[in-house]
Amino acid sequence: MRTDEKLNMTMLCDFYELTMSNGYFECGYADRITYFDAFFRSVPDKGGYAIAAGLEQLIDYIEDLHFTEEDIEYLRSRKLFSEKFLEYLRNFRFTGDIWAVPEGTPMFPKEPIVTVRARAIEAQLLETFTLLTINHQSLIATKANRIVRAANGRGVMEFGSRRAQGSSAAIDGARAAYIAGCIGTACTISDQLYGTPALGTMAHAWVQMFSSEYEAFKTYCELYPTNAVLLVDTYNTLKSGIPNAIRVFNEVLKPQGITKCGIRLDSGDIAYLTREARKMLDDAGWETCKITVSNSLDEYLIRDLWLQDAKIDAFGVGERLITAKSEPVFGGVYKLVAVEDEAGNVIPKIKISENVGKITTPHFKKVYRFIGRDTHKAIADYLCVHDETVDDSSTLEIFDPEATWKRKVVYDFEARELQVPIYKDGKLVYKRPTLDEIRKYCAEQIDTLWDEYKRFENPQTYAVDLSQKLFDIKQGLLHDQGN
Amino acid sequence: MRTDEKLNMTMLCDFYELTMSNGYFECGYADRITYFDAFFRSVPDKGGYAIAAGLEQLIDYIEDLHFTEEDIEYLRSRKLFSEKFLEYLRNFRFTGDIWAVPEGTPMFPKEPIVTVRARAIEAQLLETFTLLTINHQSLIATKANRIVRAANGRGVMEFGSRRAQGSSAAIDGARAAYIAGCIGTACTISDQLYGTPALGTMAHAWVQMFSSEYEAFKTYCELYPTNAVLLVDTYNTLKSGIPNAIRVFNEVLKPQGITKCGIRLDSGDIAYLTREARKMLDDAGWETCKITVSNSLDEYLIRDLWLQDAKIDAFGVGERLITAKSEPVFGGVYKLVAVEDEAGNVIPKIKISENVGKITTPHFKKVYRFIGRDTHKAIADYLCVHDETVDDSSTLEIFDPEATWKRKVVYDFEARELQVPIYKDGKLVYKRPTLDEIRKYCAEQIDTLWDEYKRFENPQTYAVDLSQKLFDIKQGLLHDQGN
Repeated sequence: MRTDEKLNMTMLCDFYELTMSNGYFECGYADRITYFDAFFRSVPDKGGYAIAAGLEQLIDYIEDLHFTEEDIEYLRSRKLFSEKFLEYLRNFRFTGDIWAVPEGTPMFPKEPIVTVRARAIEAQLLETFTLLTINHQSLIATKANRIVRAANGRGVMEFGSRRAQGSSAAIDGARAAYIAGCIGTACTISDQLYGTPALGTMAHAWVQMFSSEYEAFKTYCELYPTNAVLLVDTYNTLKSGIPNAIRVFNEVLKPQGITKCGIRLDSGDIAYLTREARKMLDDAGWETCKITVSNSLDEYLIRDLWLQDAKIDAFGVGERLITAKSEPVFGGVYKLVAVEDEAGNVIPKIKISENVGKITTPHFKKVYRFIGRDTHKAIADYLCVHDETVDDSSTLEIFDPEATWKRKVVYDFEARELQVPIYKDGKLVYKRPTLDEIRKYCAEQIDTLWDEYKRFENPQTYAVDLSQKLFDIKQGLLHDQGN
Repeated sequence: MRTDEKLNMTMLCDFYELTMSNGYFECGYADRITYFDAFFRSVPDKGGYAIAAGLEQLIDYIEDLHFTEEDIEYLRSRKLFSEKFLEYLRNFRFTGDIWAVPEGTPMFPKEPIVTVRARAIEAQLLETFTLLTINHQSLIATKANRIVRAANGRGVMEFGSRRAQGSSAAIDGARAAYIAGCIGTACTISDQLYGTPALGTMAHAWVQMFSSEYEAFKTYCELYPTNAVLLVDTYNTLKSGIPNAIRVFNEVLKPQGITKCGIRLDSGDIAYLTREARKMLDDAGWETCKITVSNSLDEYLIRDLWLQDAKIDAFGVGERLITAKSEPVFGGVYKLVAVEDEAGNVIPKIKISENVGKITTPHFKKVYRFIGRDTHKAIADYLCVHDETVDDSSTLEIFDPEATWKRKVVYDFEARELQVPIYKDGKLVYKRPTLDEIRKYCAEQIDTLWDEYKRFENPQTYAVDLSQKLFDIKQGLLHDQGN
């Protein structure tokens, strides 16, 4: 009875987190201080940027982190864990530090979204859920923002619950879509939980339930005169759906002086039908009637609809948004970047790989975003070692870490730290913004990006550079351990 | 605090289910008996069949169906619902009938997976969650089965939690993958909840935590001598990873007489590296060492690995399985197919569409699968009106409903009804099978399909035919309402 019980998400972890943790415990590494970065390697859909999201869920998870007696019992039954370790888990809580990029921030490959400094076991056990929530929420926010951009100022409603990959994909997906600019969702529980406005009017079943389409529309308008959006494609959009809608608007809404109303189209040739619908509605004096369309839309189809001069006031976008269908994986990873020795020195760690793209940037780092003081636009992001500080009162020469001869002098800029403290010694030190604050912040931050990063085809690659010190440390580790 | 509270999934419904329900209530349709079918229109990835799954979650949902005072309060705040309707919701429960195809059954387009007979509001309110669970679980089961087929008898482990689309995608996705033939999962909580065996050993972080790879391997083998699977690609697979693994197997396992062990490869040229690894292990006397590979695998890459003579004993498959990356949407829909008049006559209903593929098959139906008594293989599925019965003691002529001149006489067959009763008058009448029973049943049912339906490229299209009576009713409705 999944829906009946309180699920302890602490156990939503890869089994190897537990076998490794037991190992750290047994070989005396339990209290060793480690640093892990969560970051991603490429923007989905070859886009110019991603949107960071999922921190709220990570905080919920950490606040509730604990092993119940049932969890301990299950683990004991696996006959792999020592009794001392199980006893340790019984009192387990998170006591480390976390820094993270606030939700709604545009993010680029290879920069840390979340950084965890904690005892080895604590940091290790966070891996699965950190990635799960950051990957899912960032995936949907990034995709939804593409669709919102394509819609060109028209409202986009998230309509995908029925095709979502499970209940949390529906519930939390609607949240991510709202952060990224959707105006609402069909998902009732998301509104109740998060305040993402729940929207919706009728399905084909409503129309079929009555003796005629006219009867169905009339009944609906009488019930919801101020909320009358009629689904006009159950039988024949142009021959019956729109004529019946106009008749009912005239009979029910007009006498009440109501001009606000709408129709929705869910099939057929949307470009043609909306142009025809617009004409029919205008000719009948219903210029105020809004046209909403749905039916397997995404950013590419929406862009194409504009090219065909479609007449659309709002979009309902379902499966292709809620599953990020064009690229349904956000490839965030969680990698060890440093450990502390007994004297508290931070020792950088690297993960080499035969796939060059999988090589990590080592060390406990700081992430800056440089913003032009004149343009208010983002110039570049800059990773440096934790003990470095950027002086933005003078100029700074930065370089491409892959093509080091590409150099650029940055001037008249503000260096903003992208990560903010979330946990300090296991205590939540972050004041969580409301969802509407996150949504507003997201829109403002996207405004700091030049249009060149926002297009779908071949967007400019935003610079994420390393400080000379960090670059040198990485090169040193590569040469030491690469052979 | 999502993880802290018991979520009432009743509110996981599209908002329009509630506005329509309020409408049915207000216009006296609340008690009208309706029939809805959940079905899908095409198999993902152009496959030959899908695997039905998600019924267990649907039953959990229905058993817990209720509106709390907080839910009522939220709905009241929306100012769209009548007080009488809200009072009705306060006592709401499901009182209807449900038939469904058991989980694990191979399924084909346009045949009902779940059929609901219930009062209009009850049937309407089930729509979102029914689709959500059937779509998600069937999607993952169908994809996982493709990967299991490609693995050709080698074990496939589900490793995707960190890339899943939210927590239930991870937890329930592991369940669907297990039904479809995966041998286990990395997801601990799925094992705890469902008994899908949780597996896993170490991440790169384990190796990085020690002063050397050798030290890391040695410590691990000493801790888990009977479970020693070593990740060999942290630094250099052939130069250090495999030599260190062999050294440690010799030093730690050999003296204990342990021959069972393994290595895992997570990057690089898997085909080449596994061939080399096999040689090195065999030359060192570790023919018993199993080679596991991971790294963004799917059915296509696995098939390709066999063509390159890769040496692999097991696969860990993550993001591409848990998100069904190649086609992440299972397009199940839930459509009104009939209503009862006051005398209890079943009146078929159709949904016409300008997209021909979206036209529904009307009526309260039965679904038969014809199995050859000699071959034990499936011949065709056959939809008929609920009051028809197939006599499988004689022959039967069936025809393609899209190309009616294609006719075939079926003989020596057993006609099995595919749907079984789940609810009768709101009471659960189905004995739920265990997960292992479902997994076994799934494998047996797939065995009833000829290989022609199992291939990835251009599989044969399985026949889903209509009885003459059902065909005639559908044609009649199309002609009556299509203009």
